[in-house]
Amino acid sequence: MSLPAQFHDIAKRVNNWGRWGAEDEIGTLNLITDEVVRTAAATTVRTGLRIPLALPLKEDGVQTGLIPGRVNPLHSMVQINQELFGPGTVATSDDAVTMGLQAATHWDALTHASHSGKIYNGRPAATITAHTRARFSGIEKARHIVSRGVLLDVARARGVDRLAGDHAVTPEDLDAAEELARTRVRAGDIVLVRTGQIQTYLAGDKHAYGYPSPGLSVRTPEWFHARDVAAVANDTLTFEIFPPEIEDLWLPVHALDLVEMGMLQGQNWNLEELSTACAQEGRYAFLLSAMPEPFVGGTGTPVAPVAIL
Amino acid sequence: MSLPAQFHDIAKRVNNWGRWGAEDEIGTLNLITDEVVRTAAATTVRTGLRIPLALPLKEDGVQTGLIPGRVNPLHSMVQINQELFGPGTVATSDDAVTMGLQAATHWDALTHASHSGKIYNGRPAATITAHTRARFSGIEKARHIVSRGVLLDVARARGVDRLAGDHAVTPEDLDAAEELARTRVRAGDIVLVRTGQIQTYLAGDKHAYGYPSPGLSVRTPEWFHARDVAAVANDTLTFEIFPPEIEDLWLPVHALDLVEMGMLQGQNWNLEELSTACAQEGRYAFLLSAMPEPFVGGTGTPVAPVAIL
Amino acid sequence: MSLPAQFHDIAKRVNNWGRWGAEDEIGTLNLITDEVVRTAAATTVRTGLRIPLALPLKEDGVQTGLIPGRVNPLHSMVQINQELFGPGTVATSDDAVTMGLQAATHWDALTHASHSGKIYNGRPAATITAHTRARFSGIEKARHIVSRGVLLDVARARGVDRLAGDHAVTPEDLDAAEELARTRVRAGDIVLVRTGQIQTYLAGDKHAYGYPSPGLSVRTPEWFHARDVAAVANDTLTFEIFPPEIEDLWLPVHALDLVEMGMLQGQNWNLEELSTACAQEGRYAFLLSAMPEPFVGGTGTPVAPVAIL
Amino acid sequence: MSLPAQFHDIAKRVNNWGRWGAEDEIGTLNLITDEVVRTAAATTVRTGLRIPLALPLKEDGVQTGLIPGRVNPLHSMVQINQELFGPGTVATSDDAVTMGLQAATHWDALTHASHSGKIYNGRPAATITAHTRARFSGIEKARHIVSRGVLLDVARARGVDRLAGDHAVTPEDLDAAEELARTRVRAGDIVLVRTGQIQTYLAGDKHAYGYPSPGLSVRTPEWFHARDVAAVANDTLTFEIFPPEIEDLWLPVHALDLVEMGMLQGQNWNLEELSTACAQEGRYAFLLSAMPEPFVGGTGTPVAPVAIL
Repeated sequence: MSLPAQFHDIAKRVNNWGRWGAEDEIGTLNLITDEVVRTAAATTVRTGLRIPLALPLKEDGVQTGLIPGRVNPLHSMVQINQELFGPGTVATSDDAVTMGLQAATHWDALTHASHSGKIYNGRPAATITAHTRARFSGIEKARHIVSRGVLLDVARARGVDRLAGDHAVTPEDLDAAEELARTRVRAGDIVLVRTGQIQTYLAGDKHAYGYPSPGLSVRTPEWFHARDVAAVANDTLTFEIFPPEIEDLWLPVHALDLVEMGMLQGQNWNLEELSTACAQEGRYAFLLSAMPEPFVGGTGTPVAPVAIL
Repeated sequence: MSLPAQFHDIAKRVNNWGRWGAEDEIGTLNLITDEVVRTAAATTVRTGLRIPLALPLKEDGVQTGLIPGRVNPLHSMVQINQELFGPGTVATSDDAVTMGLQAATHWDALTHASHSGKIYNGRPAATITAHTRARFSGIEKARHIVSRGVLLDVARARGVDRLAGDHAVTPEDLDAAEELARTRVRAGDIVLVRTGQIQTYLAGDKHAYGYPSPGLSVRTPEWFHARDVAAVANDTLTFEIFPPEIEDLWLPVHALDLVEMGMLQGQNWNLEELSTACAQEGRYAFLLSAMPEPFVGGTGTPVAPVAIL
Repeated sequence: MSLPAQFHDIAKRVNNWGRWGAEDEIGTLNLITDEVVRTAAATTVRTGLRIPLALPLKEDGVQTGLIPGRVNPLHSMVQINQELFGPGTVATSDDAVTMGLQAATHWDALTHASHSGKIYNGRPAATITAHTRARFSGIEKARHIVSRGVLLDVARARGVDRLAGDHAVTPEDLDAAEELARTRVRAGDIVLVRTGQIQTYLAGDKHAYGYPSPGLSVRTPEWFHARDVAAVANDTLTFEIFPPEIEDLWLPVHALDLVEMGMLQGQNWNLEELSTACAQEGRYAFLLSAMPEPFVGGTGTPVAPVAIL
Repeated sequence: MSLPAQFHDIAKRVNNWGRWGAEDEIGTLNLITDEVVRTAAATTVRTGLRIPLALPLKEDGVQTGLIPGRVNPLHSMVQINQELFGPGTVATSDDAVTMGLQAATHWDALTHASHSGKIYNGRPAATITAHTRARFSGIEKARHIVSRGVLLDVARARGVDRLAGDHAVTPEDLDAAEELARTRVRAGDIVLVRTGQIQTYLAGDKHAYGYPSPGLSVRTPEWFHARDVAAVANDTLTFEIFPPEIEDLWLPVHALDLVEMGMLQGQNWNLEELSTACAQEGRYAFLLSAMPEPFVGGTGTPVAPVAIL
């Protein structure tokens, strides 16, 4: 089996290989310039309100066991009020965790996906090994993800609490949400696309959360490419619509965004509180800080994003 | 053995139990108001430069095995270019990690320390259990740590690359570094104290990094209390001078900051690049985003802080 | 709530505290003498056939998430054909695992259960801490579990493939299975009780496997005590019938076996192949080796038992 | 760089590919027949004494960080005396572990080594992946490792407590130890080679334990092949002499034993107590049970071996 012509057509149009040089490992993050950040801080922070976007990290997280190796956090105490220096001294508690780096609210590194033996910028997929992990485009290279964030609240723009499980978010949906947001998405922005799907997890049904799921259409990478977006995150497990729109074409958005465009994706972001705040304030742009934990060679990372309004 | 009178005297002066009500779980983070954040964004972000402060997360991290259970990240691949949907389909890579939550660049939760059977706000230390972990003041309660950051570059103020291993950073040192910074530390600020000690780790000697180490004197909590600082982080393993200034009084600063004052501490922050940038720019205040990963009941968390200048 | 009189009556009758001295940490394992082992080797090994009793260790194991912290093995590669000494040299592969010690085929240590603040031999339950784990009766103390094994095939004796989910295995069931086995259980034996319940897991339904489950009745500890059995294992998740026979009396068999009697329990042992072999051979006794992995302070351990016929 | 002619010459002489058919995955374990086990039980178990050979599993294990990803056990409590069913009910304690499968006393699976792109029986090394781990010759295939064990006490035969760090154990050493043992090693035996090196770890010096280390010479595979030994274990970290006898020929014994011969290797076995017992009894053969934990696709496994005399 190989990827269909339709895929390759889009791939050609959104491809950024070589755009920032043959040595580049961070893709569209290059679009976040100091200027972008300075302007974002100056123009979007009006109240100082901070809204966290990460799900709580706990054993009862969003993973159901369906994706092999992507385990919810196993978090355990290794010291509890331990008087390490003798009875009556100051005591300390320590804990440790085991978790899939893509298990909870996370960034995919560009290396999370490959196709036809290649990763972003045309490097061989085989540069990811058990020993070195991702030698190129590991998540530790994505060093300072702070930019203007824009919430494209597709669910709200369509007048629903959450999109149906078979709803592919289209460029037209993004246009409508942009209109609701009353700001034009521009170069270097980080776009947060709200489907409302995460409500099913928050209501306790993690199976319904995962599948079937609304998500981005294979037509959206061109939209993001046209606007020169730096990164995109949403409130689903799969990011793109799942099962896919085109039979037997699995994960095309991953391949287009991560491999062809070199654009980071985020999943399992809780955008509910942010949606309420943006609607109340009547503005959908903010300063967004979403720093990756710098796992060397990581193909993903938990992230604790915050929107500053 | 019990804690000496000298400790209890200071404790009385910095104690914040009840200050934000009997139900409070976050202590001095209450001092970060929207106003503080709004002003910080408006006044400190001038170039848009972002400087990350986290050490790379890797197996060869700062831990040496000395602190039981505090293990460096074991990071391994669970999928490498795996064509989950059949040959020729888009492939994905996934990874997982095991690590001590306090192993690398981290925040201590208020519950990281206890003394005399108590944690912050007078609650029983026994509310930390293997089953629930920290029922109160877990790190997931510290939800939006964004504020004005101020670098107090003690090493630079004293004209050295790094402080000697037996140097206790005193209130006088903080005064001098504040003078260098040309800004007065105020309510809600997050203070970063630079000793330069982390250079030893960066140069490859993790044993020298850990011990003996310069760090904060038992006299500093009163300084931070007087300024109503929201949180303090530095570039050492132990935060406070180690071994301690006063014989047999182990971890007094932890007990005063975390338990008595309810003020978060950060350790293993890499302040080298920031120090250079601040010196070049001639300003030491910035917008700081340092969001905890929201481990439910966590007594600490890795953090990937970023200074936005 | 406290434990009912009925529990305490049985407890008194099976209690072994002090029987092997105040310092003892291994309970009925004391009954496995060299003589027992020598005789077992001489009399039970007739063909040399070896039958392994452990379930495969994999992420899709018997745990469903119901028991907090008891995670199935997350097993990942840390090196794959890595030429550590340069290109063209001999390559090695290494892997690592995270798992609950009681997640798969395992022994409970005596310290796995406590009641009324006590563990086996009357020691305080508080001697189990996050720092030391089990200071007494940790699984590493159970050093050489090799003895005569006897399969009490209760399912076969009752003429069924597997016992119903509400079937409590009674002393009468054990008598009948002993009759089928044509050997009398005696001091130092390790008894394997087959219910057939594990067939549900092997058939792919791990939820049905866990609950409701046949298992040992609260009346069986006295039977094992009368015969001076060294340890008992079976083919269920819960060991004892679950939900329990007596309303609101949870885990009474755990408390009687582990705490009062000081007798090790094993769970999730796959006895299917052994059952077939014993029936074919017409004999149900064998040499059993079931060495614990010596986790220091462990309250349980994975085990890979083997029956040698 | 490629492997030298000298290596290939030996490889040809010890190669077992195809000997047990093209489908075989267990190599010399095929030599352990029921007959071998029956005879071993009948002839070697004289007193019933059981001697465990595993090192305690703890964070302060033999690993020093030198071998990437091979981490000592991080063992932590996830429940401590937890009354899961309400106050006053029977309480349970549970624990979990993260560890390298080759970190402590272990078996290498045949797939632990590869060379020239091949594993045992000529299969492609590329059949080991992050997703499937070892598809062939995973440790779960080595299902019932029980056989006659023979201690070849090379240190004792040479009249020393432990061999020097640069001592390569030769076929002549094995002959001398066999003479001391007063039994001839034969088909299906598991041979334990004692160097005494583990005393350095037991004395607290894990760095000295690892390197330089006595171990098996590149000349020994032919000796084991001639006797048709089923498996070999010893009391060192590296199994073979390290650094190697022949410059730039790294891990030749691994390649010969595991890849060419298909013979399992064991490392970090504590043979001290066994050595004393064998010397006292004047006999060096016993029944050995050393069942792998059946990690599916594992390239190694912790093992808790026991010698039954």
